[in-house]
Amino acid sequence: MSELRFDGRVAVVTGAGGGLGKAYALLLASRGAKVVVNDLGGARDGVGKSNFADAVVKEIKEKGGVAVADYNSVIEGEKIIKTALDNFGRIDILINNAGILRDRSFQKMSEQDWDLVHAVHLKGAFKTTQAAWDSFKKQKYGRVIMTTSNAGLLGNFGQTNYSAAKMGLVGLANTLVLEGAKYNIKVNTIVPTAASRLTEDILPPDMFQAMKPELIAPVVAYMVHESFPESGSIIDSTLGFASKAQIVRSNGAPLRAKPSDPVTIESVKERWSEAVNMADARHIEKIADVTIDLVQKLQDFEERSKLDAENKSYWTTYKYNCKDLVCYALGVGASVVNPGDLRFLYESHEQFAALPTYFILPGLVFESPVVSEAMPPGKHADFTNILHGEQYIEFLGELPGTDGEFVVRNYVVDVLDKGAGAVVVTNSEIYQNKELVMRTQQHIFVVGQGGFGGPRASTRAIDVQPPPKRAPDAVVEQRTAEDQAALYRLSGDLNPLHIDPNVASVSGHPRPILHGLASLGFAARHVLAKYGGNEPANVKALKARFAKPVLPGQTLVTEMWLEGARVHFQTKVKETGNVVISGAYVDLKNIVKQGSSAPSQPAASAADLKSDSLFAKIEDGIKANPAKAKSVGAVYLYNITENGKTIKQWTLDLKKDISVYQGEPKTGKADTTMTVADNDLMDIASGALSPQVAYLKGKLKIAGNIMLAQKLGPLLKSDAKL
Amino acid sequence: MSELRFDGRVAVVTGAGGGLGKAYALLLASRGAKVVVNDLGGARDGVGKSNFADAVVKEIKEKGGVAVADYNSVIEGEKIIKTALDNFGRIDILINNAGILRDRSFQKMSEQDWDLVHAVHLKGAFKTTQAAWDSFKKQKYGRVIMTTSNAGLLGNFGQTNYSAAKMGLVGLANTLVLEGAKYNIKVNTIVPTAASRLTEDILPPDMFQAMKPELIAPVVAYMVHESFPESGSIIDSTLGFASKAQIVRSNGAPLRAKPSDPVTIESVKERWSEAVNMADARHIEKIADVTIDLVQKLQDFEERSKLDAENKSYWTTYKYNCKDLVCYALGVGASVVNPGDLRFLYESHEQFAALPTYFILPGLVFESPVVSEAMPPGKHADFTNILHGEQYIEFLGELPGTDGEFVVRNYVVDVLDKGAGAVVVTNSEIYQNKELVMRTQQHIFVVGQGGFGGPRASTRAIDVQPPPKRAPDAVVEQRTAEDQAALYRLSGDLNPLHIDPNVASVSGHPRPILHGLASLGFAARHVLAKYGGNEPANVKALKARFAKPVLPGQTLVTEMWLEGARVHFQTKVKETGNVVISGAYVDLKNIVKQGSSAPSQPAASAADLKSDSLFAKIEDGIKANPAKAKSVGAVYLYNITENGKTIKQWTLDLKKDISVYQGEPKTGKADTTMTVADNDLMDIASGALSPQVAYLKGKLKIAGNIMLAQKLGPLLKSDAKL
Repeated sequence: MSELRFDGRVAVVTGAGGGLGKAYALLLASRGAKVVVNDLGGARDGVGKSNFADAVVKEIKEKGGVAVADYNSVIEGEKIIKTALDNFGRIDILINNAGILRDRSFQKMSEQDWDLVHAVHLKGAFKTTQAAWDSFKKQKYGRVIMTTSNAGLLGNFGQTNYSAAKMGLVGLANTLVLEGAKYNIKVNTIVPTAASRLTEDILPPDMFQAMKPELIAPVVAYMVHESFPESGSIIDSTLGFASKAQIVRSNGAPLRAKPSDPVTIESVKERWSEAVNMADARHIEKIADVTIDLVQKLQDFEERSKLDAENKSYWTTYKYNCKDLVCYALGVGASVVNPGDLRFLYESHEQFAALPTYFILPGLVFESPVVSEAMPPGKHADFTNILHGEQYIEFLGELPGTDGEFVVRNYVVDVLDKGAGAVVVTNSEIYQNKELVMRTQQHIFVVGQGGFGGPRASTRAIDVQPPPKRAPDAVVEQRTAEDQAALYRLSGDLNPLHIDPNVASVSGHPRPILHGLASLGFAARHVLAKYGGNEPANVKALKARFAKPVLPGQTLVTEMWLEGARVHFQTKVKETGNVVISGAYVDLKNIVKQGSSAPSQPAASAADLKSDSLFAKIEDGIKANPAKAKSVGAVYLYNITENGKTIKQWTLDLKKDISVYQGEPKTGKADTTMTVADNDLMDIASGALSPQVAYLKGKLKIAGNIMLAQKLGPLLKSDAKL
Repeated sequence: MSELRFDGRVAVVTGAGGGLGKAYALLLASRGAKVVVNDLGGARDGVGKSNFADAVVKEIKEKGGVAVADYNSVIEGEKIIKTALDNFGRIDILINNAGILRDRSFQKMSEQDWDLVHAVHLKGAFKTTQAAWDSFKKQKYGRVIMTTSNAGLLGNFGQTNYSAAKMGLVGLANTLVLEGAKYNIKVNTIVPTAASRLTEDILPPDMFQAMKPELIAPVVAYMVHESFPESGSIIDSTLGFASKAQIVRSNGAPLRAKPSDPVTIESVKERWSEAVNMADARHIEKIADVTIDLVQKLQDFEERSKLDAENKSYWTTYKYNCKDLVCYALGVGASVVNPGDLRFLYESHEQFAALPTYFILPGLVFESPVVSEAMPPGKHADFTNILHGEQYIEFLGELPGTDGEFVVRNYVVDVLDKGAGAVVVTNSEIYQNKELVMRTQQHIFVVGQGGFGGPRASTRAIDVQPPPKRAPDAVVEQRTAEDQAALYRLSGDLNPLHIDPNVASVSGHPRPILHGLASLGFAARHVLAKYGGNEPANVKALKARFAKPVLPGQTLVTEMWLEGARVHFQTKVKETGNVVISGAYVDLKNIVKQGSSAPSQPAASAADLKSDSLFAKIEDGIKANPAKAKSVGAVYLYNITENGKTIKQWTLDLKKDISVYQGEPKTGKADTTMTVADNDLMDIASGALSPQVAYLKGKLKIAGNIMLAQKLGPLLKSDAKL
């Protein structure tokens, strides 16, 4: 890195007669700054006179630097700034470093001790900075340092005056950052811990000795350099370390159940732990953002309260990523044996996507109180008597992406009386970025809890549909693995019924059973491949009833009937003939029968790609130095893709013609073929994406002689010269 | 919740003539506090006189409360406190609320405007609090509120004076928290946003109207209540919401490569992004903790620098949890088909543990620059020419637990010249809680990069060992799944060679190959089961060479030879006869041949268990009300476990004898048997663990009539009465 210089800059350092201030002054001067070495000339307690500043100036001059001493008090900050303007004609950098201590326990703290410390630290910085402000604004350049302390950020015994003044400087800096922003005035705060009384008792002696100002000065110098990009940062530094301090806020909470309730001391206490939960705390940049954030939370609170008034709602959040999708796909039997499944198993596949049934998971309510709290008087539901009866999912917009986050509302729409049991019908509304993207519905069968005189049916329940009374139009068969349930569990449903032989036995099963949703995942995959062009975005809705359990290792046979855009299906266990999924259907956007070609997507325009400019640049390079180009001795073919499809080809002939042109090689074939998306190629060229990583992530595919691809490195760089 | 009262407490509220202060005064008085209603009697700008305080006192009295007006300035805080002492004989609560505004752009801010705002907000709070401090200390009780503002925490245009003073209050509070702690004086800070000029322009009009002081007063009232546990909190509240603000710090970074280097402006800039990376930022409670933290970091830096001087080191961290272990176990062929594997597949299994080979993963260096940077001049290593040659792992202490975090040091010990290629020998040292718990060694074969005149062997390389020249003592065979590589990838090695047919084809394979470490995981499992009692903690060390690739779906045949405490092994592919893992061995602590019983662990003492007291209590309950006990009508058996083994049994007979005693039922058999760990049963009894969750997580196992277990709920509660 070239040396960071301050030539032409004028810096004022207050309290620069010794310690940190002196170190700052010496370092800035050694890098070309003209420095005003301000020092009141007092000893550490502010009393007495000395010529410390003169000595520092002398040292700077001896080393060939430019400096002038100043003996004014920071309380008269304008005089210090005048010294800079009078001697050097400008002021660019102001380091507010001057300070004194007057430690006393709080009760014994005199008004004088309070006032003096505030005057020097806080008002002194105000006055000095204010005096320089006009120059900063006019020249549209200024760098200001405030000096705070861990005594302020965290408190320290006997330092009420000092901790208040030091934290006041942080507040002052906060506003100066805003007022200075449009004039390129940057204001930052240093928390320097040099050897001092503060640290003497706490630290090991050798560490105390090592706390030299020279280890902090380069940090402050960087913070006042032209290249320093931040404003408003609080940097703690000592002993050659630095860290950053920042205020964060909890997500907070409403202090009442609904907006129409009063806020009481008791309601505050009740909701306190949620309000002060720092788990999701984050930094907020500006005061306006606090308000925007609050407006959003209020709207959410009101909306949720309205929904809650209609149906008592249980809100949850759900996060997922591409690894979750692959894990799920393996759990529902997707296999590398079927080439069509690779798009669900390989996160870097050009058409990587989620299986639609994955999105049933965010709405599952087995582990929430939704069902038990809905039971009629005298009836109960708990983990021992509930069964997953039916499942529905509907996609309202696009299929969600391969990672994301949902907010989910769960609520009960009806509790049905089926005699032998109750059926609790629950809905889930799944939101992404405030938009309702999916609905799901579960029927939870509660064994032995019927007979309470409730309705047998609900208009809000989505019913299963019997298949047509003809032989199925298609049948697909797949064996589940012995470890299917053990694997499917990794997608989140850890009920021991699916892994613990003892628990399974108590429930009357010969061994742990497969999750109903795992079997449904198999069946839905089969329908999608058979009639949906294997395109998950093609699914509009799906409904199924879980009729009987499946044991891992059994073979699932899915029978399908095509009726318009609806595929009815049911699934049997081959070994027993039992129907395990019944009355099920998938509604598709487009019917694409297996074997027929999928409806073609409109081809992306190959007219202008970002990488065109790159090949133009390569062409320039080749023309400038054809001999060097020829030394590579290979023909390369680039397939440039968009949305997973090759939309343009470039040949880079560095063997015969020494040329770059669109299309495949005119004669012979390429030694090496590289397939890469337009965007990814630009990232590689700019250095944002390393070719290694691109290859490892499958973003850059290389066919043919892979070693020859290495020779191309320099050619791919944006600033490449051959 | 019973009402939170302030009977007998005396509260002083400054600036209580209107707005927030008035709301605080009214609320505290309505809950029994005697209130001093202080107000300077000025309008919002501090000018003019009024009798606002009298009006508030009148309102309090009309509602049956007790209050007195006070018209002193907070600058003379001692007079306000005297009003409390004179009228009510004590002071318990002080709410520093008085304030004024003098907004001006920074450049136009007069010294008077600065001084006045600081006097009222900051010095006023200092003076008033100091005057009350002696009473607080003597009575060992005090509750103080400071009032800050988002203008201080975040800055606000035109408010340099106000933002500095408001942040100063946070600093003052920070030290008062410390000085007051041992006297039960709690000091907290409120950030109240009521309808004001500050918010008028930003907020929707109806929200502005809704910003009533009455929505904030209960928050402040809770914060000064006897039951409020926090001190030093900053609480932002408005509109019936509350959130907490806190200062966090980045983990920070050293600003030089090693302790003996100088810190320069350039070295600071180079390491800046690491120093200010807030990803792992956390709150630090006390100034001493900052130092302790720093001492630790300095020691780490010195230690690492020493190690780095021996061998250039690459430090990483690695986190894992039980789900990662299950996913890995499935990836290396553990299966529910083998009962012995269940302990690796079921996170709630009594003996759930990691497979030892899992711990090879933290030290893998394929994605780091370790290898490429070690290559001799003119030679290179990258993803296209490296192969995993050999692997070693050694356990220095206990097997790590089922979740945790490691710090890992990776370094190159030697680069060998094998003619056809180079072998880079890398070591990894894996630390947990500063302790070296494992070492691993990898040999990375770099194809075509030999012939540089380096050594052929290294004394620091751990060599493979050929098996004895006799027929193997044991042979175990297991077929890998077609999706084995797709599944193993979820453990972290996402190289497309294992999933992408195109990449595999470029590398000369008919289809994607299985990870070498996946095959090794199979083989090590087989050795462990055959000779290690299937006990992962039994493994001391393991070494293997990867001789040839395996295709998913092929059958692995592991041949073993027992020699002392060492099991030599090699693994072949059954379909081809190729040796794929060669020269391998596992060193065991104890040889336990399959079929023989494992060496018995010393049984936990059944003498005194925590749950004994619970059964004693149940016995008391039964004796107190035998008729009610008999109405349950069932016999229960409890198996109380420790470390997975039943060490005590209790029979709870609520059918025949109506009694509680140790051991199995004396006559007949139990209707329901529950198996639960001593600790877990206590958690269930105390309510810390719900029986439902315990059951679902496999912590509570129920055999026999599961429905009868439900009837026991009340009996399990610590405070149960029959």
